Amino acid sequence: MARLRVKVSATDPPVVDLLGLVAAGELFAFETLARDSALAKDLDAKAALGQIACREFGHFTEILQRLRDVGADADAVVGSYLPILSQFHAKTAPRDLLEGLLKTYVGDGIAGDFGREIAAYVDPDTRAFLDGVLTDDGRAEFVVPYVQQALAADPGAAGRLALWGRRLMGEALAQAQRVAADRPDLAELVVGGPDAQGAGLAEFSQMLARMTESHSDRMRALGLSP
Amino acid sequence: MARLRVKVSATDPPVVDLLGLVAAGELFAFETLARDSALAKDLDAKAALGQIACREFGHFTEILQRLRDVGADADAVVGSYLPILSQFHAKTAPRDLLEGLLKTYVGDGIAGDFGREIAAYVDPDTRAFLDGVLTDDGRAEFVVPYVQQALAADPGAAGRLALWGRRLMGEALAQAQRVAADRPDLAELVVGGPDAQGAGLAEFSQMLARMTESHSDRMRALGLSP
Repeated sequence: MARLRVKVSATDPPVVDLLGLVAAGELFAFETLARDSALAKDLDAKAALGQIACREFGHFTEILQRLRDVGADADAVVGSYLPILSQFHAKTAPRDLLEGLLKTYVGDGIAGDFGREIAAYVDPDTRAFLDGVLTDDGRAEFVVPYVQQALAADPGAAGRLALWGRRLMGEALAQAQRVAADRPDLAELVVGGPDAQGAGLAEFSQMLARMTESHSDRMRALGLSP
Repeated sequence: MARLRVKVSATDPPVVDLLGLVAAGELFAFETLARDSALAKDLDAKAALGQIACREFGHFTEILQRLRDVGADADAVVGSYLPILSQFHAKTAPRDLLEGLLKTYVGDGIAGDFGREIAAYVDPDTRAFLDGVLTDDGRAEFVVPYVQQALAADPGAAGRLALWGRRLMGEALAQAQRVAADRPDLAELVVGGPDAQGAGLAEFSQMLARMTESHSDRMRALGLSP
């Protein structure tokens, strides 16, 4: 469904806000992947996870630079998202490598879906930029076979990991609601403002349905019930 | 004092062993710096620490590549050092960002000194390569003023941190002794073999004295008693 309003400028506050949120997400993705590397025992896993972590960090610095290029106070806008993302990560600290990998794959998957969904409502230049930084970065390629093999060796872990996946999705939705409440500008990008409320809310529920379906696909790809 | 024997080939087992040890050290430095980033609350610190972490990871991949280029089994040689370095890091897990930063600066400082000292005994090409990967990578530039400011705000932390610095040095020496015991080839690079024992041991004690002095200099630069 066509949107009634599309933000067309890379300097619009909600677009700057969105980039700040994505940058903070990439920074935390870097930290999470590096911790996965620290939890891994074998060199192959450490090397693969470190490489993905540093790609995410590269995206983080790219977004910071872009925010500076459009004249935004990059430090302030990205910094403003650190408390809420810190809280998400404190609430979803993995107890072992498998939980860490699931968090990386499922959590960053949800974040990527969310970013790409919202990117539909921003100017084409920002959208193209977001598509470039919201790539998978090789996570699926590493995580999916790794978790599949671990589950083949220890099928009993599937129940615990399925529960963990549902908890990650629940925490992600809770944090998204907090972001929407704290940032009306950003929420308006998706659900519309006073002049576009109906269409926005209908589209918003479709967006949530698509994100839930993608999440379920990722869980199934790991051999876990969504 | 001139050494009686200098390893002149990049494919000599002790040279390969040394590169493997340095690679494993860079990988753990990456993980440690990324955890420092996770412990940091402000964006500036996270951005600076993440950048240094990814430089270290870059050095790790460079060394892996070099080991492969000289025909060594890079995964086996680097992987063989993971258990001993994991033990060091498990024994020196920082409780907060200040302890983490001190560990990064002091611990990686000791590791760098050690690598450069041993590099004196390998072929010039390997030595030049090691000089390139054993750079400071911006650690001192970030850590020294950060710790100095933290100590100015909370002078009472100096005693705890000085103790932590001494513990790091003690654990590093304990692990170095384990490496020397496990890897006679590597130890022979420094202390000499049966045909060069006296000179080697004299030089070895001078090397330890230089490393201890560098460590003390770093502690003093932070405003801590060595």
